[in-house]
Amino acid sequence: MAMPTHADDALRAFADRVLKGELRAGARAMRWVDDGAPQAFDLLRHLYPHTGRAHVVGVTGNPGSGKSTLTDQLVRHHRARGRTVGVVAVDPSSPFSGGAILGDRIRMADHATDDGVFIRSLATRGHLGGLSRSTHDVVGILDAMGFDEIIIETVGVGQDEIEVVRIADTSVVVLVPGMGDDIQAIKAGILEIADIFAINKADREGADLTVRDIRALQMLSEDHGSTEVPILKTVARTGQGVPELLEAVAAHRDKMLAGEGLQDRKRRREAHILETLVRDRLVNAMQSALGSAEDKNQLFDRLAARETDPYTEADRLVAELLNAND
Amino acid sequence: MAMPTHADDALRAFADRVLKGELRAGARAMRWVDDGAPQAFDLLRHLYPHTGRAHVVGVTGNPGSGKSTLTDQLVRHHRARGRTVGVVAVDPSSPFSGGAILGDRIRMADHATDDGVFIRSLATRGHLGGLSRSTHDVVGILDAMGFDEIIIETVGVGQDEIEVVRIADTSVVVLVPGMGDDIQAIKAGILEIADIFAINKADREGADLTVRDIRALQMLSEDHGSTEVPILKTVARTGQGVPELLEAVAAHRDKMLAGEGLQDRKRRREAHILETLVRDRLVNAMQSALGSAEDKNQLFDRLAARETDPYTEADRLVAELLNAND
Repeated sequence: MAMPTHADDALRAFADRVLKGELRAGARAMRWVDDGAPQAFDLLRHLYPHTGRAHVVGVTGNPGSGKSTLTDQLVRHHRARGRTVGVVAVDPSSPFSGGAILGDRIRMADHATDDGVFIRSLATRGHLGGLSRSTHDVVGILDAMGFDEIIIETVGVGQDEIEVVRIADTSVVVLVPGMGDDIQAIKAGILEIADIFAINKADREGADLTVRDIRALQMLSEDHGSTEVPILKTVARTGQGVPELLEAVAAHRDKMLAGEGLQDRKRRREAHILETLVRDRLVNAMQSALGSAEDKNQLFDRLAARETDPYTEADRLVAELLNAND
Repeated sequence: MAMPTHADDALRAFADRVLKGELRAGARAMRWVDDGAPQAFDLLRHLYPHTGRAHVVGVTGNPGSGKSTLTDQLVRHHRARGRTVGVVAVDPSSPFSGGAILGDRIRMADHATDDGVFIRSLATRGHLGGLSRSTHDVVGILDAMGFDEIIIETVGVGQDEIEVVRIADTSVVVLVPGMGDDIQAIKAGILEIADIFAINKADREGADLTVRDIRALQMLSEDHGSTEVPILKTVARTGQGVPELLEAVAAHRDKMLAGEGLQDRKRRREAHILETLVRDRLVNAMQSALGSAEDKNQLFDRLAARETDPYTEADRLVAELLNAND
C-alpha cells in the first residue's frame, strides 16, 4: 500500500470540510467538477461513501411552465420545516455555461443570507453525457455536504431530461394548461419519468382539460401502474397547491421505501452514474484517436468529398481504440 | 481482393433499387437500420458515395409550436414546384418507438397517393446517440433515393435536437407567441442552431413581442452574425408566411453555397456522423464489458451499498475495454 502523500492529506482535509457542509468548500468542489480538474475524481471518491442520504427530487418542465417558481416554493416550504435544501438547476439550452444563469442570480438573491439553501446552475453543453455527469457530481457533493433535500430542476422532457432524472428518488413533471390543442403537446414519454404531475398555472383556463388529457394518456399506457401517478393542480406564483405537492412527494417516497421499487431505482441510478462516467472517458479516448484539429479536418474533408465513408472510418477508429493500450 | 460473394451481389442489387428511388426498397432499408440488421452498414456503405445531393432542412420546435403543420405546408409548396420531399419526423419523447406515431399516420394519409413524398417517423429512445445515428442513416437513405428536399422535424431544443440538426444545411427554429413572460422561455441556446426563426401562430397576441425578444437576444449574443438571422411570422394552419419562409430557406442556402461557411458546415456534419457511429460502438462495447444482467445487478448493488464507488469501477472498466483486443 502506498504511503499517503502530502497531496492525499490535503485532499482528505478538504473532503472533510465538504463533509462538514462548509459552503465555500462545496462551491470549490463544484468548480473542480466544472473545470474537469484532475483532483475532482479523487475528491468524489472520498465523498462517495457519505452520499445516498439526501432525498432527491426532480422537477422537469418546459420553458414557461413556471417550474423555477415552483422549485422556489418547495424550497420555502422545506426551509419553514427546518430542512436544508440544495438546488441544481440544469438547463442545456442556456447560453451561460459553467455559471449562474440570469434567473438563478435573481433567485440566489432571495436566499443569499440563508446558509440552509445552496443553488447551483449547470448549463454545460457540447459534451454528450457531460451534463448528466456534472449533475450527478453536483448532487453527490450536495448530498455529502449534508443537505436534507436536493431538487434537480430541468428544462423540457427530451432525452437529456430523462437521463438526468434517472438519479432522482421522485420526479415531478410540470405542465401548463392550454397545450392540449396540439396532438403532440402531451407525450406519453413523460409518463415514463413522472412520479407526480403538477399542472401549474392552474388558475388559467383549461387546467381540467389538461388533467383529463393526462388521465387519458395514462389509461392508454401499457404501464398499468401509471394510472396511480397523482395529478395535482398548482399555482406556483401564489403558492396554491404547494403543500399538497409536498405531501404527494413524501407519499411517493414512503411508498418507494416500503416497496420493491426501491432496489430497481437504486440499481438504475448506480447504472446511470457508472455508465455516464465510462462513456465520457470513451468519448475522450475517441477524440484523442481522431488526432489533431488538422488531422480531423483532413479526414472530414475526405468524407465530404466521398473519398471514403464513415462506416469504414468508424471500423478503423474502433479497432484502433480497443487496442490503444497494446 | 476478395471475390464478390453471392451475398455481395444481392446487396449491390438491392442498393441499386434504393438508388433508383424504389419506395419499397427504401422502406426496407430503413427497417434494416431500425432493427440494427447486420447488413445495414454494408448497404449504407454502398449508398454513401451517392449521398450529399439533397437539400436538408431542420425544423425544430417545442410541442404545440405547430411545426408539423408548418412542415406539411413546406411539403405542399415543394410538391407544387415539382420537387420531391422526404420527411424524417424525430420525436424522442414519443411513446411509439420504431414506427409511425399517431400524428404521422394522419399526415401520411394526406400524401398516401403521392410517390414524391416519403414520411418516416423516428422515436427510438434509450440509446445515447442512437437517435442521432438513426436520423443520419434515414436521411442518407432518402438522399440516396434521390429526394430533392429532406426535412428533419424535431421536438424541442435540447441537446438531442442540437445534435440532430448538425446534419441539416439550414435549420428553422419554430417559436410561438406568448412564452415571453417567463425569463427562461426564450434561450440563447437556440440562437446557436437557428439559421431562420419562424414565429408560428403569429395571428395570436404577442407575436411582435416574441420577435422583439429574439432581436434582443441576438443583440446580446457574442456571435455577431446572429443578428443577420431572419425572423419570420407564419400561420401554418392557413399557410400565411410560408412562401416567405421558403424564400428565406433558399436565400440561406445560396448564401451558404457562396460563402466559406460551407466547408465548416460540411466538416461539422461529417464529424458528427462519424462520431455518433464510433460512440455507439463504444457504448455497445461498454455494455458487453459490464457483463450479464446478473453481473450488472451485483455490481450496482455493491455501488448502492457503498462497498465500492463508481470512479474506481469506471477506471477498471475503461482499462478492460481499451485492452479488449489484446
